[in-house]
Amino acid sequence: MAEEVKLIGCWASPFTLRIQLALKLKGIKYEYIEEDLSNKSPLLLHYNPVHKKVPVLVHNGKPIAESLVILEYIDETWTHHPFLPKEPYHRATARFWAKFVDEKIFQTALKASAATGEEKEQIMEEIGEQMKLLEKELKENDFLGREGIGYLDIVAFSIFYFFQIRQEVMRIELISEEKFPVLWKWVGKLSEIVGVKESLPPRETFCLHYSSHKDTGFKIC
Amino acid sequence: MAEEVKLIGCWASPFTLRIQLALKLKGIKYEYIEEDLSNKSPLLLHYNPVHKKVPVLVHNGKPIAESLVILEYIDETWTHHPFLPKEPYHRATARFWAKFVDEKIFQTALKASAATGEEKEQIMEEIGEQMKLLEKELKENDFLGREGIGYLDIVAFSIFYFFQIRQEVMRIELISEEKFPVLWKWVGKLSEIVGVKESLPPRETFCLHYSSHKDTGFKIC
Repeated sequence: MAEEVKLIGCWASPFTLRIQLALKLKGIKYEYIEEDLSNKSPLLLHYNPVHKKVPVLVHNGKPIAESLVILEYIDETWTHHPFLPKEPYHRATARFWAKFVDEKIFQTALKASAATGEEKEQIMEEIGEQMKLLEKELKENDFLGREGIGYLDIVAFSIFYFFQIRQEVMRIELISEEKFPVLWKWVGKLSEIVGVKESLPPRETFCLHYSSHKDTGFKIC
Repeated sequence: MAEEVKLIGCWASPFTLRIQLALKLKGIKYEYIEEDLSNKSPLLLHYNPVHKKVPVLVHNGKPIAESLVILEYIDETWTHHPFLPKEPYHRATARFWAKFVDEKIFQTALKASAATGEEKEQIMEEIGEQMKLLEKELKENDFLGREGIGYLDIVAFSIFYFFQIRQEVMRIELISEEKFPVLWKWVGKLSEIVGVKESLPPRETFCLHYSSHKDTGFKIC
């Protein structure tokens, strides 16, 4: 049977971006279906009735939702160029930090954009502390995945790439060369890698998108 | 080298319980270290400096934190009686629902305990809707893991067992035989299984613990 791979996503979603990157890096051909999240399609509601969110990967008619779950599925289904390290302890470390990026760094950034004044300052400090921990993890390795672009690189990059562009437009400074030189260099290096580079939506389109959502804070679909 | 397995936990934590269950079901001997979360030990802070939370599994001196990450580590390190199904799509399904139990059902239950009046009623309805989805998933299978006690059974059971005991003491009705007959029967069946049964702290001790935290809501360490 011929493989049928579809991805329901939203171009401005870091969680969609990570699946696009993963499929590109594995060299898997897929059909991309852009979702209008302000008017959700029957297709999305059919394939992800629990969360009604993107991304959803549909492989030979079977849907998989939740970006971290999708990444593991891709890695287990197409086993060439594995994203997760082989050794169980390194796999656990990658999964630990991926959860940290999604549940701590990203969630704290969302809170920051909704806050003002002193509260905002406090939350920004919190993000700074969280980023420091990841910077330390990266310091002795070229990639977070240690052995090349891996699961954690894909997860973290999709978030930090958005942070980097976002601060060109908004007033929140989430990642800077001065504060996080290692992470900054790493984002730059990953942006240039073949496979990654072609998956990134144009910087200008992003800037325009964020500019139009300036008042609503950290608007990400 | 002889295996050295330690578990830093808290007896009243469902997240600790799931690791105890997993180790017991795999037949792995370990040293259990009870943590006083009101006065965190240097050992816990050393092994989990990022979250400072239990459970932490320490295997031959290497720490692994976050209960879902630990479960995958256990399954990948001691490969007999696998918890996760073999087939990638079934693995993805188990991971999807495990995230759902932790990030939706458990988090909504926490919110419910802090709420009052109309807000509480709304949140309770939300939990009911979430539980219905899982009940549906379980309906056609004896276990959530399909092929025997698996990853998702361990994850969900550790939460629902606490729900079941808790409602003997508190006023929130989280799970009932009338509303969720399939889940109810499944919790009962799992409680009786050898390996699971011996890992459960005595019901009376739990009831006493919850009674003493009646005023503070859904107190779980």
